[in-house]
Amino acid sequence: MNDKNERVYTAAVAIIGNEILSGRTQDANLRYLAKELNAQGIHLREARIIRDHVETIVSTVNELRGHYDYLFTTGGIGPTHDDITAESIAIALGTRLECNTRALKILQEYYGGDLNDARKRMAYLPVGATLLDNPVSRAPGFQLANVFVLPGVPRIMQAIFEGFRHRLAGGRPLLSRTITAFVLESQVAEGLAAIQSRYPQAELGSYPYARDRRFGSALVVRSEDQSVIEHASQEIITLVRSFGKEPHIEDSTG
Amino acid sequence: MNDKNERVYTAAVAIIGNEILSGRTQDANLRYLAKELNAQGIHLREARIIRDHVETIVSTVNELRGHYDYLFTTGGIGPTHDDITAESIAIALGTRLECNTRALKILQEYYGGDLNDARKRMAYLPVGATLLDNPVSRAPGFQLANVFVLPGVPRIMQAIFEGFRHRLAGGRPLLSRTITAFVLESQVAEGLAAIQSRYPQAELGSYPYARDRRFGSALVVRSEDQSVIEHASQEIITLVRSFGKEPHIEDSTG
Repeated sequence: MNDKNERVYTAAVAIIGNEILSGRTQDANLRYLAKELNAQGIHLREARIIRDHVETIVSTVNELRGHYDYLFTTGGIGPTHDDITAESIAIALGTRLECNTRALKILQEYYGGDLNDARKRMAYLPVGATLLDNPVSRAPGFQLANVFVLPGVPRIMQAIFEGFRHRLAGGRPLLSRTITAFVLESQVAEGLAAIQSRYPQAELGSYPYARDRRFGSALVVRSEDQSVIEHASQEIITLVRSFGKEPHIEDSTG
Repeated sequence: MNDKNERVYTAAVAIIGNEILSGRTQDANLRYLAKELNAQGIHLREARIIRDHVETIVSTVNELRGHYDYLFTTGGIGPTHDDITAESIAIALGTRLECNTRALKILQEYYGGDLNDARKRMAYLPVGATLLDNPVSRAPGFQLANVFVLPGVPRIMQAIFEGFRHRLAGGRPLLSRTITAFVLESQVAEGLAAIQSRYPQAELGSYPYARDRRFGSALVVRSEDQSVIEHASQEIITLVRSFGKEPHIEDSTG
């Protein structure tokens, strides 16, 4: 997949929230993080959606932070009783919560006399946590070891992420080219498998779709190497044209 | 949470697909399955989004099928080289793929002379698999032990699920009432925690939102027991009104 000397950076995401698992809320954070991490040269390998339950959070965090370079969590860092992510992270990392004086100062400056006990709760962070600045609603996210703890509200999560993303070490982004045409997956399957075997450094995906009552396939080539994408996609274009179809081509990351 | 004699049925979902982890595609299956399983009295406890990678699928399937009553997978059962779910499930369950004669017959009847090798691949299922009827595009999903294997295209996945959902054993659905009001989470946090402690059989969640530049909270009571919901939500309504706000109330499952 890469030059031998080049390190691949990997990440996992843990989405914490009963409201996602009950179907009440559609998650909107995974896709954002997937795209933005990849643009930073960090490959998202796995995501888990788990309950607001201390033991579950602890075991999930410990499993994922051990397997990947980075772990990003979303959800559960607000002022109410069901916000148990900070205490769970502290347990997972073998430490405890303390009143973080910098976080408290930020909240004091923002809320002034309206800083009640519930809001103060958001200043209780694991010992050793580094704050992640929140330009929207001030209550910070935090980093501890390779774990980045973010809120669940997408607008706030994104604003915090934007503030520290440039500090994340990464490798080369995964690039992709999508070749879309009104060919059936079953028509191109054999040819596509042959192209995949000739380009083991590329990842070829095939995704069916229906538009205007016609069936088509989106054929995606992913690689960190632009020249691999050029060559493999040229073969896919030739394959598609052999069925008398003209493909639409689009480049992106991810 | 339940009467002592009543069994709680649990499920996990494994979403298989590089295209979700790259951010290319927004998953649309988790929320559907979450809602529909809950309506069937089956609680979705965990979801994982994993790569198209045999060893990853095998270990994830074995972990989840052992922990929960049901495992539902989506994605990776089409005709192309990147469709590796069926072979991975076979490995996970210690069996192998064979040409399923019933599946082959379904495909023969549907495709007639157009049944090429790529399409025939969709008839290769683990030994012992039970077919799950696909009224849309015919190629069936399948069940093996407590694992239900479904395609990734939402319309087809849903049509297959509708065909067997009535056969799934379940308990009582999780009911919910949502009390929405322009109160801040930090205002109600203390009162909400007190209500939660009085109703351990209920699960109280608090979710902030912004509308028309005003901030509010959606306060959700979940329980299998309607009377618990009635009592706890009445206390929440009283709490909200103590801040001079009039709540909006909505019932649903999940």
